[in-house]
Amino acid sequence: MSKPKVFEKPIGVKDYLPEAVAKLRAIEFRVLACMERWGYNQIITPTLEYYDTVGVASSTEDKKLFKLLDRKGKTLVLRSELTAPIARVASSLLKEVAFPLRLSYHSNVFRAIEEEAGRDSEFFQTGVELVGDASSEADAEVVALAIASLQAAGVDTFKIALGHVGFLNGLFQETLQGRTDAQQALKEHLLNRDYVGYREAIKSLALSPEVERELVGVLRLRGGDEICEQARMVSQDPIAQDAIRHLCEVWDVLKAYGVSEHVVIDLTMIGDFSYYTGMTFEGYAADLGFPVCSGGRYDNLLSQFGRPAPATGFALKTNRILEVIGKDAVEQPGRVLIAYDAEHREEALKLAKDKRKRGDVSVITQLVTEPASWTDRVVKREDGLLELYGALYKDIVTLVH
Amino acid sequence: MSKPKVFEKPIGVKDYLPEAVAKLRAIEFRVLACMERWGYNQIITPTLEYYDTVGVASSTEDKKLFKLLDRKGKTLVLRSELTAPIARVASSLLKEVAFPLRLSYHSNVFRAIEEEAGRDSEFFQTGVELVGDASSEADAEVVALAIASLQAAGVDTFKIALGHVGFLNGLFQETLQGRTDAQQALKEHLLNRDYVGYREAIKSLALSPEVERELVGVLRLRGGDEICEQARMVSQDPIAQDAIRHLCEVWDVLKAYGVSEHVVIDLTMIGDFSYYTGMTFEGYAADLGFPVCSGGRYDNLLSQFGRPAPATGFALKTNRILEVIGKDAVEQPGRVLIAYDAEHREEALKLAKDKRKRGDVSVITQLVTEPASWTDRVVKREDGLLELYGALYKDIVTLVH
Repeated sequence: MSKPKVFEKPIGVKDYLPEAVAKLRAIEFRVLACMERWGYNQIITPTLEYYDTVGVASSTEDKKLFKLLDRKGKTLVLRSELTAPIARVASSLLKEVAFPLRLSYHSNVFRAIEEEAGRDSEFFQTGVELVGDASSEADAEVVALAIASLQAAGVDTFKIALGHVGFLNGLFQETLQGRTDAQQALKEHLLNRDYVGYREAIKSLALSPEVERELVGVLRLRGGDEICEQARMVSQDPIAQDAIRHLCEVWDVLKAYGVSEHVVIDLTMIGDFSYYTGMTFEGYAADLGFPVCSGGRYDNLLSQFGRPAPATGFALKTNRILEVIGKDAVEQPGRVLIAYDAEHREEALKLAKDKRKRGDVSVITQLVTEPASWTDRVVKREDGLLELYGALYKDIVTLVH
Repeated sequence: MSKPKVFEKPIGVKDYLPEAVAKLRAIEFRVLACMERWGYNQIITPTLEYYDTVGVASSTEDKKLFKLLDRKGKTLVLRSELTAPIARVASSLLKEVAFPLRLSYHSNVFRAIEEEAGRDSEFFQTGVELVGDASSEADAEVVALAIASLQAAGVDTFKIALGHVGFLNGLFQETLQGRTDAQQALKEHLLNRDYVGYREAIKSLALSPEVERELVGVLRLRGGDEICEQARMVSQDPIAQDAIRHLCEVWDVLKAYGVSEHVVIDLTMIGDFSYYTGMTFEGYAADLGFPVCSGGRYDNLLSQFGRPAPATGFALKTNRILEVIGKDAVEQPGRVLIAYDAEHREEALKLAKDKRKRGDVSVITQLVTEPASWTDRVVKREDGLLELYGALYKDIVTLVH
């Protein structure tokens, strides 16, 4: 066990330098402002939660939770997501407030051992929860808000894939009754989007030709309007039928929102959280293999906190959006340097105050102790900016005798 | 060891509901914008740091650090402040960037066992570090920026107390040479602002009448311009004299900034961090016993990270400012409810979109399934707001047959 070097930070965590922070914060502010315009009010929950309540409810694999002990020997976790903490708040501090609740958040979350896969163990999520409304209208609202949020963040090209956990559950129950291992194996293949593996697994199950055709047919259930009709043919299982009916209602409301061009129905989709009970969705940006947002309906989570209620929501994967949006997406204010000698101090500081009050520039003041050599060191670049000691300025004001 | 109830959160942490979040965020945004206008660029460092490097350098009492083990057995801490993490970044990722560095942050920090004193174990700090400038001009800049930041946050009435660790160190070394226990005891009394205890401790030390007078005289060294002159008389110790000279230069620059009305010199002040090496300061708001900001010079910290450099900075105690500023300091957008039946869905969602685009209101849409009873339930209040199911709206638009 070697002692860490002084400049090291723990594996899987990172520092964000000013340029990245400016972008990250711009995404945060624009998205939260968008959510507020849709009636979602922001809350902040603590970094530390009890393992036994929020930790367990969070549906994060146990080994991925950062754990520590409090002084009484109870296990605490660093929050791994915000849905379970918000369910706790909706059931305690907000228990007298009538449903539906519309809440938003921007927060860092933690996942242990992710660094082994080269992923961050601390990252940001920006999301909403709509608690107390079971309707397809509510599901469509959060999908439409996810679309508006991605647009507010500056993501230009993306698709939302819309699914429903009830469809595959119903279909597999109908076709693979009692064969839970087989059901699980097929779900794993779909979760990993391994369609070749899915077909091979079906072949290995020795099913009747009709059932085999039915299960393979699932892979074609991705598209627009037409999918709802096709899906109704595939399975007669009542759970699957309910799922399809609900999803088609969501689809109709999304058309009324005028956003269906951004949405595809994808019945092969498996949500990545075990607490999802209904519609699920994921957003994909052009040129990026990972989803930039994910969400869904979770009607059983609130009951774990003593206030049973349906709920739906989503989280943007803010760090991935940071990678997607352009370098020039955020305009930084120009920098002005005011250099002065002791004699001009009052004048210089007054000028700085006036310029800062205008608010469109960033003003740095610097007492100059060798005035003679000062101006010689300023280099005018081709783009019009002035360079001095490696830093760039829009303007340099020299108040020196 | 009882199992925590599902609605419980760990002791010492809290949830911020929308009204508090709106205030907290307004403070954060206004202060960070102010810091940016002064040329300070924001960075974000990880929540988890190594105990052996940043944890030890942070100058937080060991028992107040939240600790956990990583998978290799190294001890991690939840950051307890931002000065040491920023020193790490200045010495690693930013090591090629020329001094002076001007960096700002807004962050949650953690202190264990504070709940025993009824204090939060997670709270927010908003601050700056000016790294690589040893001048009194730099110290004055951060004090002036602290004043501008408090004003930006909405704190109207406050005083900054300005001191210097060198003055008491020099004076005590001169008068109580070698008696480190006695020196420590006197410092403890001053740190706790226990002036009665300070006087009694001096009496118990059996000193010469002149030395006793000199040490008691320290208590009078609080005020404006006149204190610099008086302090020069008190001690001839060269360290104390250097401290006074530096502090008087800072005072002169603060006069040039036009902010000396907010500042008092207080030579009885002891900074609360052991890494302070020069000027220290604390800000007090009217009607609040605790400081709302604290800062100072720390010229030895950077060398612990391999890039020796002078530095100065401060942190606002953001949660305390939240208590100080008025309830109406933040204007929230008015809420508009658009109620519709299925027939008017498209029209309603289009209207919501248009209103959201204007950006000055928060728009909630609601499908109405019992249109007959809907409008009867709206109550017009005396303040003009409309109440429905316990929620308040500026306007309610009903698009129902």
